[in-house]
Amino acid sequence: MDKSSTKPFRVGILGCGTVGTGTAKIMLESRPSLKDKTGLDIRLHRVAEKDQAKARASGFDRKLFTDDALAVCNDPEIDLVVEVIGGIEPARTFILAALKAGKAVVTANKALLATHGKEIFKAALASKTSVGFEASVCGGVPVIAAIRDGLVANRIESIHGILNGTTNYILTRMIQNGAPYADALREAQAKGYAEANPANDVKGLDAAHKLTLLANLAFHSTFAFADIHAEGIDAVNIEDVRFAAELGYSLKLLAIAKRQAAGVELRVHPTLIPNSQPLANVRDVFNAILVRGDATGDVMLYGRGAGMMPTGSAIVADIVDAARGSARQAFTKLQFFQNPRADLPVIPIGRITSRYYVRFCVVDKPGVMGKIATMLGQHGISIASVMQKEPHESGDVPVVILTHATVENRFQAALREIARQEFNKRPASLLRVED
Amino acid sequence: MDKSSTKPFRVGILGCGTVGTGTAKIMLESRPSLKDKTGLDIRLHRVAEKDQAKARASGFDRKLFTDDALAVCNDPEIDLVVEVIGGIEPARTFILAALKAGKAVVTANKALLATHGKEIFKAALASKTSVGFEASVCGGVPVIAAIRDGLVANRIESIHGILNGTTNYILTRMIQNGAPYADALREAQAKGYAEANPANDVKGLDAAHKLTLLANLAFHSTFAFADIHAEGIDAVNIEDVRFAAELGYSLKLLAIAKRQAAGVELRVHPTLIPNSQPLANVRDVFNAILVRGDATGDVMLYGRGAGMMPTGSAIVADIVDAARGSARQAFTKLQFFQNPRADLPVIPIGRITSRYYVRFCVVDKPGVMGKIATMLGQHGISIASVMQKEPHESGDVPVVILTHATVENRFQAALREIARQEFNKRPASLLRVED
Repeated sequence: MDKSSTKPFRVGILGCGTVGTGTAKIMLESRPSLKDKTGLDIRLHRVAEKDQAKARASGFDRKLFTDDALAVCNDPEIDLVVEVIGGIEPARTFILAALKAGKAVVTANKALLATHGKEIFKAALASKTSVGFEASVCGGVPVIAAIRDGLVANRIESIHGILNGTTNYILTRMIQNGAPYADALREAQAKGYAEANPANDVKGLDAAHKLTLLANLAFHSTFAFADIHAEGIDAVNIEDVRFAAELGYSLKLLAIAKRQAAGVELRVHPTLIPNSQPLANVRDVFNAILVRGDATGDVMLYGRGAGMMPTGSAIVADIVDAARGSARQAFTKLQFFQNPRADLPVIPIGRITSRYYVRFCVVDKPGVMGKIATMLGQHGISIASVMQKEPHESGDVPVVILTHATVENRFQAALREIARQEFNKRPASLLRVED
Repeated sequence: MDKSSTKPFRVGILGCGTVGTGTAKIMLESRPSLKDKTGLDIRLHRVAEKDQAKARASGFDRKLFTDDALAVCNDPEIDLVVEVIGGIEPARTFILAALKAGKAVVTANKALLATHGKEIFKAALASKTSVGFEASVCGGVPVIAAIRDGLVANRIESIHGILNGTTNYILTRMIQNGAPYADALREAQAKGYAEANPANDVKGLDAAHKLTLLANLAFHSTFAFADIHAEGIDAVNIEDVRFAAELGYSLKLLAIAKRQAAGVELRVHPTLIPNSQPLANVRDVFNAILVRGDATGDVMLYGRGAGMMPTGSAIVADIVDAARGSARQAFTKLQFFQNPRADLPVIPIGRITSRYYVRFCVVDKPGVMGKIATMLGQHGISIASVMQKEPHESGDVPVVILTHATVENRFQAALREIARQEFNKRPASLLRVED
């Protein structure tokens, strides 16, 4: 028998909110089955929580609790620290302290890793330990492990992700009920799926944090959060959702990382997807990620992106990975955020290539459609399909065009020219399309 | 630096057919990037292939080849043997020889593992080595790793899988084109998706082999291939596919492993799934598996289930897992097929609980529908919906009924009673339904 497999592996948790409670619950309840499955004796040793009410509400043995997170980070008995406080500080300070003390760290904190990953992963490498972050993207769905290990033999060509459950819920309500954005947001807030201040979700920042991590993992590069072009769903017009549905498309907030000859496109924005695509059928708060590898082709992973138990499940999987020793082996070589040979430039949004959906609002006069088509053609933009609808009560006519692939800057230039024309009544509504 | 990370890890491949060629190709082409990503120097050392034509067709350096597979299994320079010959013998003999010689083994051979897994895994445990079989289920999609590691903190409640690309292609053609089974099979054969003798696929045996492996992994048990109840798609009537579509259901060949109070249901059969379910949207040759964990809820993995490069990708991922040493750590504790405490009985097909779709063919007389409903009611079967269609030219009337959940034996008894009635013209057509 391997002696190390019977020595207890002791875990400290920082924060006893929703995810901390879920993690502790799984650790306490699954300890015997985890021992059966892995041979590891993983013990919950300490939980740091300043808020006495939260500690009490958890129902866990009071002796587990301390209000001194730094003491947990430096406790010589503890092998691994789980950070589930969230936010930048003091989470960053605690993680750095735990790493300095030689402990493995597991965190669900995508905002912190996306903005301070370079510093944190460097500290982990210096201490010959590891940072597990499976829980930071797509909750209980093992996407980090799939890219790191399962697809290790692939050159990753692209990632398309529905990485934020809040916005997917809102968009699903808009698609299914024809509800305008504001109504769908209120419904999401009433159900607890959106926060009172929903900016982090609806403006695409949370998805961009996650994409920062995925892109660095998939492309072995050193992208910063600021490299991601992020647009939210808060300006989405329900009229476009309806027209898109008529054309056989669903609107999703997609996080996209795509390898091109000139570098990598990194972007988060509302995107139309054909209904025949598996991502178009990911509804409500579910998350999904479609990874294209050169050998595997498309691989999709799907599941709940958040919540006490799914996130706790991913954290415990990372604890097992660390306790086995496999986390450190893989982590050391990943050079996450540190690859000195990283050489993939980020393609600015103006130079990306995409298909476009555009809705013009024009006066109801003969010849307008022809003028629009001509101007697009003069900019080298090829039209895939056109839909002209009955005039609004105002007399304005909506003209919806799907283009073939073109460069963003070229398309924007065409839109600016059309915007200057007399027949154009209002700014055009624009959505990017992925097939 | 860890010295072991620079020592070459030498691999021998048995068989240079489609999958062997794909595996070798990835190993040769990705060697530098694998070294970058993992720190491992994984080298293709030898390929055993008796067929000189295949060896030549591969285009690989002739010096790699030997016609003596047993010599590869016993080559002291080789660390790991990949078995991609397929079939039971001589694959079994070679794998046992390689394990006896202390080598790790990686295989895509589900038929062999499902029928001789107990012997093979026992031999691997005895030699303190490991058997990787990620490639044996869902090709390039890392489902084995997801269940073994990513969902390690979960009690798995159920698995629903579309595990066979051939049958999924045939059923997709039937659904999309209304083509009868025989036509769709011919189309699949013409495209190379079905073999000249398609029995292994269309009779559900291939899916049952894969389910044997998944169920043992997920439930840590000792199920045998013979424990799986398997029905194929060769008796599927296109009329039922069309009626199901009208009711909002798609027909799939589902492999199901489901934990119940009395044990585990293990079955492969044509199954109706509501179109709103993600599995219903898995089309053509794609595979998918939906795993329900107690913590994560539903997690789905989706991708290509076969083919040279996807399968090769999974094999190389397993090679990396073994070269890192993590395969052995995980494998030893899994007690795959060997768990002495396995205590989950298999529920016989007659005692499973399911919803049912049934199509009766009855005479066109008043009162028949009432009689059917009454007889079902007398057997305690509750009707969820009924659809009666216009009579056929023959004068027979199709009556389609969806039931609520009931026990199979009870439902079969009701069908037998109805079959004896004068109004019944032909044997009823039956499909199980999963929601």
